[in-house]
Amino acid sequence: MKRGFASDNNAGAHPSVLTAIRKINSGHMIGYGDDPVTAEAIQLLKGAFGQQTEAFFCYNGTGANVLSLNAFTQSYHSIICAETAHINVDECGAPEKFTGCKVIAIPTQNGKIAPKAIKPWLHGFGFEHHSQPGIITITQTTELGTVYRPQEIRELADFAHTYNMKLHMDGARLSNAAAFLDLPLQAITTDCGVDVLSFGLTKNGGIFGEAVVFLNSQVPKGFKYFRKQSTQLHSKMRFISAQYCALLENDLWLKNAAHANEMAQILRNSLADIPGITITQPVESNGVFAIVPPHIIEPLMKDFFFYMWDEHRNEVRWMTSFDTTTKDIEDFVTRIKELL
Amino acid sequence: MKRGFASDNNAGAHPSVLTAIRKINSGHMIGYGDDPVTAEAIQLLKGAFGQQTEAFFCYNGTGANVLSLNAFTQSYHSIICAETAHINVDECGAPEKFTGCKVIAIPTQNGKIAPKAIKPWLHGFGFEHHSQPGIITITQTTELGTVYRPQEIRELADFAHTYNMKLHMDGARLSNAAAFLDLPLQAITTDCGVDVLSFGLTKNGGIFGEAVVFLNSQVPKGFKYFRKQSTQLHSKMRFISAQYCALLENDLWLKNAAHANEMAQILRNSLADIPGITITQPVESNGVFAIVPPHIIEPLMKDFFFYMWDEHRNEVRWMTSFDTTTKDIEDFVTRIKELL
Amino acid sequence: MKRGFASDNNAGAHPSVLTAIRKINSGHMIGYGDDPVTAEAIQLLKGAFGQQTEAFFCYNGTGANVLSLNAFTQSYHSIICAETAHINVDECGAPEKFTGCKVIAIPTQNGKIAPKAIKPWLHGFGFEHHSQPGIITITQTTELGTVYRPQEIRELADFAHTYNMKLHMDGARLSNAAAFLDLPLQAITTDCGVDVLSFGLTKNGGIFGEAVVFLNSQVPKGFKYFRKQSTQLHSKMRFISAQYCALLENDLWLKNAAHANEMAQILRNSLADIPGITITQPVESNGVFAIVPPHIIEPLMKDFFFYMWDEHRNEVRWMTSFDTTTKDIEDFVTRIKELL
Amino acid sequence: MKRGFASDNNAGAHPSVLTAIRKINSGHMIGYGDDPVTAEAIQLLKGAFGQQTEAFFCYNGTGANVLSLNAFTQSYHSIICAETAHINVDECGAPEKFTGCKVIAIPTQNGKIAPKAIKPWLHGFGFEHHSQPGIITITQTTELGTVYRPQEIRELADFAHTYNMKLHMDGARLSNAAAFLDLPLQAITTDCGVDVLSFGLTKNGGIFGEAVVFLNSQVPKGFKYFRKQSTQLHSKMRFISAQYCALLENDLWLKNAAHANEMAQILRNSLADIPGITITQPVESNGVFAIVPPHIIEPLMKDFFFYMWDEHRNEVRWMTSFDTTTKDIEDFVTRIKELL
Repeated sequence: MKRGFASDNNAGAHPSVLTAIRKINSGHMIGYGDDPVTAEAIQLLKGAFGQQTEAFFCYNGTGANVLSLNAFTQSYHSIICAETAHINVDECGAPEKFTGCKVIAIPTQNGKIAPKAIKPWLHGFGFEHHSQPGIITITQTTELGTVYRPQEIRELADFAHTYNMKLHMDGARLSNAAAFLDLPLQAITTDCGVDVLSFGLTKNGGIFGEAVVFLNSQVPKGFKYFRKQSTQLHSKMRFISAQYCALLENDLWLKNAAHANEMAQILRNSLADIPGITITQPVESNGVFAIVPPHIIEPLMKDFFFYMWDEHRNEVRWMTSFDTTTKDIEDFVTRIKELL
Repeated sequence: MKRGFASDNNAGAHPSVLTAIRKINSGHMIGYGDDPVTAEAIQLLKGAFGQQTEAFFCYNGTGANVLSLNAFTQSYHSIICAETAHINVDECGAPEKFTGCKVIAIPTQNGKIAPKAIKPWLHGFGFEHHSQPGIITITQTTELGTVYRPQEIRELADFAHTYNMKLHMDGARLSNAAAFLDLPLQAITTDCGVDVLSFGLTKNGGIFGEAVVFLNSQVPKGFKYFRKQSTQLHSKMRFISAQYCALLENDLWLKNAAHANEMAQILRNSLADIPGITITQPVESNGVFAIVPPHIIEPLMKDFFFYMWDEHRNEVRWMTSFDTTTKDIEDFVTRIKELL
Repeated sequence: MKRGFASDNNAGAHPSVLTAIRKINSGHMIGYGDDPVTAEAIQLLKGAFGQQTEAFFCYNGTGANVLSLNAFTQSYHSIICAETAHINVDECGAPEKFTGCKVIAIPTQNGKIAPKAIKPWLHGFGFEHHSQPGIITITQTTELGTVYRPQEIRELADFAHTYNMKLHMDGARLSNAAAFLDLPLQAITTDCGVDVLSFGLTKNGGIFGEAVVFLNSQVPKGFKYFRKQSTQLHSKMRFISAQYCALLENDLWLKNAAHANEMAQILRNSLADIPGITITQPVESNGVFAIVPPHIIEPLMKDFFFYMWDEHRNEVRWMTSFDTTTKDIEDFVTRIKELL
Repeated sequence: MKRGFASDNNAGAHPSVLTAIRKINSGHMIGYGDDPVTAEAIQLLKGAFGQQTEAFFCYNGTGANVLSLNAFTQSYHSIICAETAHINVDECGAPEKFTGCKVIAIPTQNGKIAPKAIKPWLHGFGFEHHSQPGIITITQTTELGTVYRPQEIRELADFAHTYNMKLHMDGARLSNAAAFLDLPLQAITTDCGVDVLSFGLTKNGGIFGEAVVFLNSQVPKGFKYFRKQSTQLHSKMRFISAQYCALLENDLWLKNAAHANEMAQILRNSLADIPGITITQPVESNGVFAIVPPHIIEPLMKDFFFYMWDEHRNEVRWMTSFDTTTKDIEDFVTRIKELL
């Protein structure tokens, strides 16, 4: 089917991922993670995030987020995030349901939160009537395509730790952030003090699977039981692990992400001179947010599927992915020009 | 790696499954199930279970079970199952956690429950102090390798419906039961009055994915939200759907299951004359349960991995799978004879 | 002990409440609500709110709120309230924990929400990634002492019903609102379209107990089981019911509330001319909110206990109750003047 | 109303309890437990159970049980109890709903469990597929009126601790057990190694209120937030505390319980010679269980309310309480004789 700009999860898998799966398919391996492919994948993750890290595979981003948040909270805690956070608006209340916690959503301009914006919500410590602030969660890259700089993350981690809270990063598109910042994964996570990370590769060329990665905190007692109880433990684990191997070896994750980012830059640049189109967020990863003339939206969607972001102001979201081509963008921009 | 007898989920994927995945990999498709591959898979499921059925894909058996049970319960209901049921002993409390329901586990000899055994637990209807009986769940084939006959299922369904309850079937190994009974899938599910089915193919040659199939009951309002909230909604859905297509087309599911069953029969027969080995359950699917001399267990496990079933009486479980060969069994039996 | 201005729940019980309890104490009555005292209390509530209403007693306001919200939601719904709502800030996440729902908190100036402020949050209907808007809850009187006018409630109810949502009222201080508006209870609840009400009398002279009152909606199937499962069903129910009888007979609820309101008016008026004290909310019930010079807070608290409302701007909350006397207020104001 | 034999919670409150409430009613006290009456009640509980104990008041037995169990479990744990336990059959699934844990119910003859019966359920430690055994809970006196001897409790506590589990006691009728054993409260709880106790007085002459008492374990971090979040924190706490004071001072709890026990003995003795009536459990507290000729049940219930225990074998339960008189029993026995 034709490639569109709806989501990086509308793409298929990178060919190397399929090859890796085929390679480890034959013969029997013990289920649930006690197999050599999983052992190798975990070593690769230790290589990427630091030797002290501990990684646990699960099925998807919502699962990894819920497990990460649950790892450091009791039900009387609150979870603090940006109002635009995936956990707040796109998980149908999964965090509340599984953790029992209150989610406090902080308004932002660009999807990023900072200590200053969080501070006013930190009160009632020790007062039993109030949910106790427990964990801060940020998305890297954010749902608006913006990227936290290392210093910003460090400040958030220090801030969280000052209040005896933890910092979680939803890294569904962490690869795109690393590519944009031109920094190793460890430099923008572990080294910045992030406690636990949801590290996803599905949006970057995988089929399924996500990793909960403990970076700077001991794995909480009981974590493995929570993974099972949350329905997020896969039996034929080698098939998730093989994908991680494929994407971590030879920096395929980086090539894929860098490519997607580049495509977004080209798209942005191609639109720069078109009157009537306003880019609404800095393009720092693989998404372009734009306000466009309303009459072009429907016909354009017919040819290249994508989603509205904010109907009230005719803002759309265009996502590129590892398999987007310059030709795709040319065709897309041509069609936009025709419609205008 | 060497094939063992630990579990049918220790096998890899059937080559046709990999081929099917490769075939639908290129290009973009809308995520979360609104794609043509998923549409085709659902049509195949309607073909297998009846045109009125509605199917929803999710990640795994625990997920499908939890979603099925949740679909017809409120938290004040009880869930009735055999003591040996997967939902009771192998899901780390996932049903209780997600549904809030009480699980009532009924002792059995062979993994099968019947109205007569359930009846004594059905009291307190309308009395607010008691969890209200809500749903009966059976496993086909059972965790002990035994198979419910259609008449037994029909009686359970009628019984459940008399009390305004529902009947759920955990069909992680439904294919093996159909192969054993030599009956179509519909004849042993829909036609017997089962309301909702967890239909798994992972243990029968798949990579990941399970289906919640509503057979005789309308899909409860809100089911799709529960799937998302339970973390069981996959983004790149086509990859689950393609596996269902591969296994449902040309009855690959049946060939795989029939083969595994046959291997179990051969194993059982090969052991029949060996003194000191007692088969403890009728071999009706792809599992052989046996009491063996304790001294052979450890050395045998070293060569062919498998699990203890009941340590107190030296009972082991040997599972065959779609890729078990007669040579595997010969080698295994030879080794057993050597050790005795 | 000395009376202060901390909370109306710092008062004891009205003497008539104690008398009523003594009156029904002797002899045996069936537990859990099937007794004549409870029958009488329910009749009185039907008299107050309309014959079609159905009432269920429970222990406290948090319990009544959680049960009311749970009655009309599934875990994938969202609950919409003012940011200052008791359910949002003073129940330690009880609504999230018990219902599994997302709570959406809307900023307000005066503790009141209106359709216009809610509208922007109502999107994603039918989209499985989003918690589905399920119920709006308002507090009457609000946590800021302000009172919704009947027309405002009617608009909220119509608005909710347009979107297939319900309207819940947290009426912990409903009596004070009725006294302020000089309207019967039914006129400001049932007649305005409220679906379910938490009707509390603890803050108005009771010892313990709260009522969930279904006004315009059928009692949802299973409600009584949820009450039990939530730990909110009392065994010796007559003791809650007797308090409701005492307060509903001869309009004691109204006398108590009107008195408390009057005391707040006197306090407000006594402070009007004092320089340095700014009343921050209209005084419409039994609370006075004021910004005061910071240096007087601590010494004043020593003599008359009360709570800070907003530390950042030296705003305090002074609550009157059914047993506050004009002498109490004189002493309090005198002390304030001394400290200034 | 006439006194019957349905339940000790069908009685009203002891007059001293009402007096105590009236005594502390006037004036203001800080809510939620920071008041002098609560301080005194806690001191009395320390006196009764040992100085190291920590007590928290809540509303009722189900609340106290849920909070106690939750205090020492995570959702992946299992809770082990007798099949007849109140938490298993009379709380509508409250423990499962609030804790998320699996409840494992062990069949018994007399309502008592012992290490030998529990042992077979303790497996799968460390295996993530199984709920991990977390806490054992026993009821004293049991739901069948039988009483654990100190040695039996000690063995259960040692057994639990060996497996790194905790021991909880549901002491809704602990007073009756202490009276029967003629031992101080501490001797049959703290000194036997019980970790946490639900200590109820409602069935022994109170109006409402229960205490969670930590005997030999530190109060788990976060307990007070769980109490609030579970809806079990009372605002006007002094009214619960005053009842505890009334019943603990001058051993009123013991007098009440001893009286109820004595009444049960008299009832049992009065029935001893009546042909056709079979006492089914040793009478060790305030309940008499008996199989009676079916034709007398309905007419007898009309005059003296009581409950069926086991309909299948015409077994009834007759409970005495602190206010049962010898005259009540004479009348009851006379009526039984008439009906036979």
